[in-house]
Parts: sequence; structure tokens; C-alpha cells
Amino acid sequence: MELNKLLRPQKIVIVGATERETMAGFASRMFLEQCRERMEDLYLVSLKNDRVFGVPCYRKISDIPGKIDLAVICTPKTTVPALLEEAAEQGAKGAVVFASGYGETKLPEDVRMEEELTAKAKDLDIAVMGPNCAGFLNFVDRVFAFGFLFQARESAGKIGLVSQSGQVCMGLMESAKGSFSYVISAGNSKIVTMEDYLEFLVEDENTEVVAAYMEGIKKPEKFAQVLHRAVEKRKPVVILKAGRSQKGSRAAASHTGNLSGCDKHTDALFKKFGVIRVEDLEELLSVCAAIVTLPKLPEKNSLAFVNISGGETTISADAGSLYGLELPDFSEETTERLKKVLPPFATAQNPMDLTGGSDGNTFEQVAEIVMEDPQVEMLVTSLQITEKISDITIYDYLEGLIRYCIRHPEKPAAVVPLIESGREKEVLEKLKAAGVPILPPPHYGYRVIRHLMDYTAFLKTAENRTGTIAALQNKQEEDRIALSEHQSKQIFIDYGIPCPKEKLTVTWKEAAVCAAEMGKKVVLKIESNDILHKSEIGGVRVGIQGEQEIKNAFQGIMERAEQERPDAKINGILVQEMLEEGLEMIIGVTCDPNLGPMILLGMGGIFTEIFQDAVLYPAPINHWEAEEMISSLKSSRLLAGYRGQSPLDIKALADCLVSVSRLAEDYRDKLVEMDINPVFVYPEGKGVKAADGLMVLCRKP
Amino acid sequence: MELNKLLRPQKIVIVGATERETMAGFASRMFLEQCRERMEDLYLVSLKNDRVFGVPCYRKISDIPGKIDLAVICTPKTTVPALLEEAAEQGAKGAVVFASGYGETKLPEDVRMEEELTAKAKDLDIAVMGPNCAGFLNFVDRVFAFGFLFQARESAGKIGLVSQSGQVCMGLMESAKGSFSYVISAGNSKIVTMEDYLEFLVEDENTEVVAAYMEGIKKPEKFAQVLHRAVEKRKPVVILKAGRSQKGSRAAASHTGNLSGCDKHTDALFKKFGVIRVEDLEELLSVCAAIVTLPKLPEKNSLAFVNISGGETTISADAGSLYGLELPDFSEETTERLKKVLPPFATAQNPMDLTGGSDGNTFEQVAEIVMEDPQVEMLVTSLQITEKISDITIYDYLEGLIRYCIRHPEKPAAVVPLIESGREKEVLEKLKAAGVPILPPPHYGYRVIRHLMDYTAFLKTAENRTGTIAALQNKQEEDRIALSEHQSKQIFIDYGIPCPKEKLTVTWKEAAVCAAEMGKKVVLKIESNDILHKSEIGGVRVGIQGEQEIKNAFQGIMERAEQERPDAKINGILVQEMLEEGLEMIIGVTCDPNLGPMILLGMGGIFTEIFQDAVLYPAPINHWEAEEMISSLKSSRLLAGYRGQSPLDIKALADCLVSVSRLAEDYRDKLVEMDINPVFVYPEGKGVKAADGLMVLCRKP
Repeated sequence: MELNKLLRPQKIVIVGATERETMAGFASRMFLEQCRERMEDLYLVSLKNDRVFGVPCYRKISDIPGKIDLAVICTPKTTVPALLEEAAEQGAKGAVVFASGYGETKLPEDVRMEEELTAKAKDLDIAVMGPNCAGFLNFVDRVFAFGFLFQARESAGKIGLVSQSGQVCMGLMESAKGSFSYVISAGNSKIVTMEDYLEFLVEDENTEVVAAYMEGIKKPEKFAQVLHRAVEKRKPVVILKAGRSQKGSRAAASHTGNLSGCDKHTDALFKKFGVIRVEDLEELLSVCAAIVTLPKLPEKNSLAFVNISGGETTISADAGSLYGLELPDFSEETTERLKKVLPPFATAQNPMDLTGGSDGNTFEQVAEIVMEDPQVEMLVTSLQITEKISDITIYDYLEGLIRYCIRHPEKPAAVVPLIESGREKEVLEKLKAAGVPILPPPHYGYRVIRHLMDYTAFLKTAENRTGTIAALQNKQEEDRIALSEHQSKQIFIDYGIPCPKEKLTVTWKEAAVCAAEMGKKVVLKIESNDILHKSEIGGVRVGIQGEQEIKNAFQGIMERAEQERPDAKINGILVQEMLEEGLEMIIGVTCDPNLGPMILLGMGGIFTEIFQDAVLYPAPINHWEAEEMISSLKSSRLLAGYRGQSPLDIKALADCLVSVSRLAEDYRDKLVEMDINPVFVYPEGKGVKAADGLMVLCRKP
Repeated sequence: MELNKLLRPQKIVIVGATERETMAGFASRMFLEQCRERMEDLYLVSLKNDRVFGVPCYRKISDIPGKIDLAVICTPKTTVPALLEEAAEQGAKGAVVFASGYGETKLPEDVRMEEELTAKAKDLDIAVMGPNCAGFLNFVDRVFAFGFLFQARESAGKIGLVSQSGQVCMGLMESAKGSFSYVISAGNSKIVTMEDYLEFLVEDENTEVVAAYMEGIKKPEKFAQVLHRAVEKRKPVVILKAGRSQKGSRAAASHTGNLSGCDKHTDALFKKFGVIRVEDLEELLSVCAAIVTLPKLPEKNSLAFVNISGGETTISADAGSLYGLELPDFSEETTERLKKVLPPFATAQNPMDLTGGSDGNTFEQVAEIVMEDPQVEMLVTSLQITEKISDITIYDYLEGLIRYCIRHPEKPAAVVPLIESGREKEVLEKLKAAGVPILPPPHYGYRVIRHLMDYTAFLKTAENRTGTIAALQNKQEEDRIALSEHQSKQIFIDYGIPCPKEKLTVTWKEAAVCAAEMGKKVVLKIESNDILHKSEIGGVRVGIQGEQEIKNAFQGIMERAEQERPDAKINGILVQEMLEEGLEMIIGVTCDPNLGPMILLGMGGIFTEIFQDAVLYPAPINHWEAEEMISSLKSSRLLAGYRGQSPLDIKALADCLVSVSRLAEDYRDKLVEMDINPVFVYPEGKGVKAADGLMVLCRKP
């Protein structure tokens, strides 16, 4: 969708202009007070007022001489459709609708009005922001169509933000850390969607990092495309996504009528596209501020901590370890060089305590030396910067740090104080100018550093990934059918998933012949679309051999089935070669109604459930992604050859995952779920085998 | 140790008074500037200066007319011993020694000087703070013997802090959140130890919460006593303890020469005594500030979140779930009552979005209603309080909250904004006066709330615990000896640990007789103190029955042992009844050189190592504590009767843990480690059995 006329309009009309303390009044004031230099581009329309804040008003849009680009509609929802038409007539390609009481109330009448509004916007080819939104601020061209009061002048920068909550926009803009290219309060965002705004920001050259607060994903395929584009452009996308908890999802649904979806699936999707997922506003803004401040992001998890007190040194190293931050030992050369510049009581080690005998020059020299150590990627210090620094030596140390950083923009550095407080503003500015972000204390600050390193690590392997998702093409029907094991396996085999030899038989004699052909012990299983849990009704017998055993087992299974499930339609008995035992794992697919098939891999047996050692990833996956899934399991140590056992066939397991992914992608519009449980994994070169499996489809299409 | 003369002195002398910008100068200034009302209690001693900041100086301590209580010695370390003697002569029972360069350098000469200082302090019966410290501030009596400059007047309050880092004291005091009874920079703290200061603060009636930054535990038994006393007094103890990471431990050792010890053992110890363990200064101070601000701590994990925007409502609920915060559904009655006061678009649910149509009165009414819901224990809101609040409606909401809280001090409430910023000072003061802490954003704020709820939950069961530790009475000798399985089990049996029937035999005939007496299949195991890993050398044969099998197995084991370990002294062959298989678990004991025996319980088999599902707890333990250990394992679900299996004998497993604890306590001075691996756990009523076991002792005492 073309959003330039919406977000970068030349001529703007505020409809419903007023001086009252309402969103309409705030929008009028915001523009008039903060964009005086663009007054010739602004028109006010008011039925009641001749002038608003001294500016003459038109009675209606059509009175305006000449074309307009954007209409900011501040009037009640009943007036909106007619105003949209008028605006379109006057050339507008964009509109902002503040009014609420649409789909988010879930009342049939309100939902209908939102659908009508959506249809009208499409008819008129007009990009509508909202409804139930607070508008936007464009700091690049200085267009403020925003329904809350805010001192916007100081906030221009490189963070492009879109949010489904106006209050969230306010919270972020009021922080001293924020500096924005665009701030968009998207509201219900069912006309112009979150994906459209994200696309705009990803493509926008004034935006260095894209930040979003999202309550739902509307167009998953487009979402994935936009994220993939961001990866190509190496532009980080930082998202606070609703739906971590059931209560949060419910709150989001009440707020903008958005369904936040299965959170584990969101996580998996974000992982595939390197999205930096954050949990609150402080984390969101800290990550973004770090990205726009640092001249270069850290490329690996390898830090030098340099401090001026032993307590800070100790605490920062300990807290860093909680977030997996690595502090490599310095090389011998580095250590020797350090000894020459350090005060006598200081120890040349990482983390480094410069001790009281040091000063700003020491800090600068030490920074120089440790950052030349090839092991070290980033410098972090915990210097305590307060509102009014009482220990004046801190300034000296800061100057040392700044001198180093200005000379070496290629080496990332950050300050992570151990306690929050006001910070001296001039110090903040100086550090920022030198490319040094001041992050919040460790539980945020180290988390932020970790996000940055995870992101650059992701970029390094991004091209190994498929970079797409298999979102559903059609909504699945409600009506469901479970395939039997044998039916499922016929499909597995079509996709190259290794299965045991098996045959469906209807008499014990047929079963006996079949078993004899297989030439070893066999398994007999009841085969019925109506019986999913075969063992529970005695429908499985293992290790059967010889005609007599087969006859007994066959008849035994049939009798039990008739007793236990007289209603079930029995297809016969499945005769299956008896597999050697391998490591038991589970491969599954769940079809997300929005995002499409999600591939699951986990350990089999009782421990999966207790330890929840499983990984999810959106289809399609390639072999590289499959191997990444495998290695991300804790229990992958068992596959790699645990305690002297021979390594297992990871390659074959990955092949199997890729086959499952191809199957899932092809069947996506009707595959509800499937699992292979267990899949046996054998030693290297011996492959894998799907010992049991099941698919659930919807009947149509 | 009597610390009143040190920490609450009447008459104080500053030795080495000066106007220069040194610790001596700062200490002189601190007192002179900030405690004018106590000038008659202060003496200055200086060799060189007649006056310091206008106050006349004595040449030496003995020139002072009358007795002194405390000497603050700011002079270099060589002068300290003589000054201590002089001070003692003049009646001093306390001294502060700033000088550094003692044990922390680890140089033999410096270590020796610290030992001498310690001995002298003991001889003179003088409580010495430091060396290598920054002194202390007593806000109760207004005594400031502190070597850094700091505006102390505004910081009086109820947090009692002791820290092994002066910089940490500074960092905490410079935050607006802090308000202290005492701030003690304890330095190396080998004379008056951290335990002594903690004891003082736990007993001190002006201190409501005890906070500490500790690098090592010197007197574990006393430490445990003090912590137990704090539990009895219901006084929370919040500790930031060095040693989470190997790098942090190393930094601590360089800083104050303290050994931080095994971090898992520290964790276990803290758990036993309900210590609130924090990870950085922001967390330390936020917990303490919340405790002193809240009129009552939350008694259960059951919160109502009330906000004024849908975005905040959603984000706070999601972030809360990451810290396990529970938001119960409101009762039907609550919901009905809410509907009457809420604006039309708002939904009566938890978390609650009041929506734009509400105001401060709505907030107050809603608070009243939801807090009367018996499910709800605490009210949390994310109201955004900035440096200069731009949305004036926030004031109205805050007033509503404050009105409610003043009327209901019995209901805890807190503000957890979603983003950090400066906060309007007057608003902070008003909220504080109403007993409402403003916590940092969620990654800190929710963690803090969780700490408080975990603490009150601990208190509820505190009296079920032993409340002591079995710290070593004597240091263990280096020289070690491993007992054989049979020797270990003889001791196990003495302590009532259930073991299989077994007998040590030296001929196959003897073994055969013994096996016949047992009357079923047996296990044969090589028995030697030199062979710890019996299976690896083919030293175990299972399921043996009948004379011939016994003979073969016996001889086979002997031959292999002679081949593989010709050096080993063989005691014979252990004949053991063959146990039925149960759930495999591991019980172990590791003796912490400082804290004494730590009991470990975990799942057996390969999964323990991969999933690290094990729990540690300091001996001694009682049956209640043993059951708590068991239930804290993830895999305890297997014991409780997983997937329709019958529940296992948890009571017998707990008994076994208690027996192990008794053994470990008795043997503590010589038990290096022991394990029972595996212990089989059988269905309820069938007990447990130690299938294999091992003890490693030191030879003496």
C-alpha cells in the first residue's frame, strides 16, 4: 500500500478543529504550535468555529481551495464515512481516524461499521490510519497529526516506531532515550495494517531501526516478506508483541480487537527472521537507542569489562554471567601491556578493576590495549553517572572513555551503570556524540547487549535460511478427520520419510504370510480411523513370530477392539516389521491458523513433557534450518554421541524434518496437525525410522 | 562482638585530619559539614595541621582531654598499630582503618600485617572496621565517619546496609530511592566481620530491612545464626553476594581477598534462611525501598493490575507472566460491582483497562472493589510518572490511587511503570507517604514483587525448618581415602539408610553359600578401596543364580580385576541381593569447606546431567525439608504418579534424605563427599533402596 500520502503528506486538513481539551483540540494545537514553518500546508475545518487558535477555519473540506493529501478526521464515528468521501473528492489519499467504538467493542453493530469503513477506504483508494488510533508524528518532514499533547521538537532521530497503543507512543516519546523518525499510533489497524507500516519503515531511509508494539499479525505472508526485506537491508526490527500470557492476550483483544495468536508460534516466527523480541517499553527503547547510538554493533559475544572499583567489577561480571555474557581472558601480550599502565594494586585481568590509583588516562590506555586484544569485541563499563556527579574523578574517567571511543568508532562500547538514577544531561550528550549508549542497569542493560549480539549472530547465518513462511492460502474448514497410521504413512512415504515395512491385512492368514515375507519378528497393530490411541485398547502386540503367535495376536487384537470400541470401523490389522530401538524423538506439525505449519522436534518419552525440551520452527525449513533445530535442543548432546556412545544420524534426522516440512507446506490448507511419535534415530549412517505416526486433516478442501 | 562503641560512639577522633582531597580530608569535611550539632563530640588529630576547616587539632590522641569511643584512623598503614594502642589507651572500643594494601594484595608481607592488625585488635579489645574500607554513616545518631564526599542529610531511613565495597555504598546512597539507618563500608572485614555487622543490623530497632553486599562468608555458623534470628524477627535480609561466576569470584578475591565459595551452595544456604538474593544494586535497592515503603508485604501471589490504557494493560500482564505473577479472575460479585462504576467500553476483568472514559474517582472505586475480592492480595498499576507529567489526567488517577491507599494501609499497592524516566519528585513523595513504592520497570519491578511474595511464603513455613547449618568444626585434612561400597554401606546401615542384603566373600564357595541363603538371583561386585568405577573393569555381574554361574562369575571378575588393576588391593567379592528396579534417583553429599555438608537430590541416569534437575540443601535437614527438596524437582511429577502410574514412596525417600543428613552432620569434619547412585524409589509403602554407594573421607581426624 502506498503510504507516502498518508505519512508524508504535503497538504493536510484537520477536520473538527477545536480549542477544547479533546484529541481534536490536541491535534489542532500540536500542529499549530510545533510546525509553524508549515502553516501554509495546513487547513482547519470546523462546523462551529470560525477560528481555532487564531487560524481561520473552513466550514467543510470542499471549501478548501486546491488539493489535499491527508485528512485528519477528529469527529465522531457516524460522521466519518461522509468525510472520507469529501476528502477523497478533494484529492486525499490518506486519512487518520481517531474515533473509537468500532470492532474492538465486538458488538455486531460496531464490527459492521468497521467493515463498512474498510470497504469504503478501499473503494475510495484512501489509506486510513485507525480507527481507534491517536495518529502519527513524522519527524522527518515535521508533520504532527497526533491526538495527544506532546513536546515533539526534541525527539527527532532514527527510530521508526509503530504501535497499536497511543499510550505506548506517549510513554516512549516521553523518555529521554527516544529519538524518532516516525511515531505511528496505528489503532485497530485493519485498513492500513501493521504490516503496511512496518514495510514503510523498513524501506524508509531515515529510519535506522524499526520498533513496533503489535497486538496481532493480520497479513502473515506480508509480515514475513517485510521481515525478510529488513534482514536483506540489515535493518534491525524490534517488536514488543502482545500474547505472552493468556491474560495479556485477553487484554489485547479488548483493546484493539486483535487476536494475538499462539505465543510459541510468534517466538518461532521471530527467530526465523531475526526479530529482536522485547518484553516491555524500557527494553524496547533501550535496544533501539543502543542501535542508533552505537556506530557499529558488536559482532560476537566477547566483552571486556573495565571499572574503577572492585565491587562494581565483581557485581558486573556476576550479573553478566546471568545473561551469558562472555568475558574472555586477555592474551599474554595484552596482560603484559596492561601491567605497564596499571597502578601497582590493579590486576591485569578481565573483568578489570583499575583501582583508586588510576585516572582518565589510565582508562583510555587500558581501553586502547584491551580492545586491541583480538579476543575482545566490545567494551563495557559500569561508571556511575548520577544526576549531579559528586565524585568528580568520574568526569576524568568518562573523558578517557570518550577520547578512546571517538578515535575508535569501529569498537563498540557502552556504559551499564549498576543502579538507575537521573543522569547528568551534558554527560549523556557527550557520550552519545561519541557513540556510547548509557544502558539501564544489568537486568535491562545486559539483556540489551545480548539482543545486539544475538542479532548480529543471526545476520551471519541469515542467508542459510529459507526466509519465507508457508502461511495458509485458505482458511481451514472446521470439520476434521484423523487418518489411520497406515494412511498417514502412505503420505509420509510419498515425501520420503523413512517408515518401517508394513502391510494392511484383514485375515490372520494374510498377516502370517506377510510376516513370513518380512522374515523376522513383527508388530501387529489395530488399523482404524476411529482408534487413535491403539495401545490403550490393547491394539498393539510386539515381537510376534510364527504362524501360531500371529494367529493368537491377530485374533486377540480383533476381539479386544470389538469389546472396547464396538462403534469403530476397523480397516484390518497392520503387520509391521519390528524395528530396532533407537533414540526416541518426536517430530510434529501444528498448523497455526494464521502463520501456517509449525514444525516441532523434541525428545520422546516421559521426559519431553517434564523438561519441555522441544523446538518449534515455521515451515518451510531447509536442511540447515533442520540442523539448527536439532542442535538447539538440550538433549542434542545425546545425538552427538553421549558418554562415549557413537554419534547418531543427525543428517538423516534433518532430512526427515525437511521432508515433514515439504509435506506440511503442500498440505497446509488442510493439515490440522501431524506427529511422528516416536521417530527412532540410529547411529550415523543408519538413518531414522518413523515408528508410528498420525495426521489430522480437515475434510475440505 | 559489641559494636555499639564502633557504630554508635559518643566521642570520636579523626586521626590524620586534613583539608586535602583525600579520604582523610573527605572524612574530616563530612563530619564537620554535616554534623555541626555534634561538634562537641568530635576531636581532630593532626601532626601537621593546627586547624582543619577552622577546627583546632590535637597533635596526638593522648592529648585529648577525656575518654574517646571511636578512632577514625586515616593515616598510612605503617602508623596504624601504634595509633590503635594510643586509642585504646584513651578508652576507644572502636576504630575505623581506611588504609589498604593488606591481605587483598596477597603479598606475604601485607597478609602478615593484616594478621598482626587482627591480633592487636583482639589484644586491645577494640572493634576495627576495615582495613581497606571507607568507614560508615550512622543516620540514627548522625555519626559520619566516611571517606567519600556525600550529601548525607537527606538519606535517613530504615535500610541498614553493610557492604564490602565503598563504591557500592556510594552508588546506593546517591540513588533517590535509598534511605538508610546505617551505611557501613566494611572493607576486608576480617576483624569485625560481615557477620558481626549483620548481627548488629538484625538486632537494631531502627533498621527495618538489612541489605548487604558480601564478597565472602567468614563465620558460617554465626552467619546462619544471624539469618535465623532475622527470620525470628521477621526482618528481611537482602544480599548481593559475589561469586555467581568464576570471573566474578576472581574479581572479588582481587578486591578484598575474600573467597566467595561455591555459588550453588550459597544459593542453597540463602534458600534455607529465606534470604532475598539479588543480582545488582538496582535490584538490591528496589527491594529494600519497597519493603520500607509498603505498610504490609503481599502475603500471596495474587495481583490485580489496573491501568488506564489497553497497551499498558496488555504489556504489563504479559511481562508479569514472565515472572510468574498470578492475576486471578475476579469473582462474579466483583465483576458485577465493577460494571456499575466502569465506563461503557471498559471490560470488568483482570488485568483491567479503565479506558479513556474513566478518571481518578473511577480508579479509586475500582481499587476499592477489586481489593475487596478475596482472591486479590495486591494492586499494581503501570501509571506513567515522568519528570514533568504532560498528560494532566495522570495526576487525577494518582490522587485516586493515593486516596484508596491511605484508607487501606492493609492492602499493598505499587506502581510499576513500563519505562524508566525521571519522576516528578512531589508525586514520588506523595505516593511514598501513602505507602506506595514506585518500582523500576518490569524486569526489575516484577522481580521485586516476586521477591516479596517469595519471602512472605518462606516465612509461613519457616518454623518447619531446622534453622541451622552443620558448618565444619575443624578444617578437613588434605589426605583422602575412598571407602569401598561395602564399607560405605556399613555406615549407611548404621544411619538407617535402606540397603540391599549383601555379604563380602573371598571364595566362590562362600559366595555360592551366601547366594543360596539369599534365595534368589544375586549381583556380584568386585570389592576394593582402589577400584571406584567397578563396571568399567568388568567388576559387576548381575542376575547370577546357581553354583556354576556363581563360580564362573566370581572367577571371571577376579581375573579381569587382576588384569586391569594389578595394583589394586582386593577385599573380595560382594554378593548382593538383586533389587527390583525402581525409579532411579541420586542422593549425594558434598562438603563445602566453609558451610559444611550440602545434600543433593536429583534424577538418576543420563537425563540428570543434561537437564540438571537436581536440588541442593544444607545439612541438617528434617523430614519437612526433605519433602520440600523432593517437590522442588521438576521430575517430582514422576514420583507423584505420572500418567496413571502408582505414586512412589516419597515418605521413604524423605526419610532416606534425613538419614543421609544425620550421617553427613556426624561425619562433617572428615566427609569429603558421598553418593548413593542410584537409589531406587519404589511404589508407596515399598520404600527405597541404596543400590550402590560411595563415601570419600579425609584420613584424619
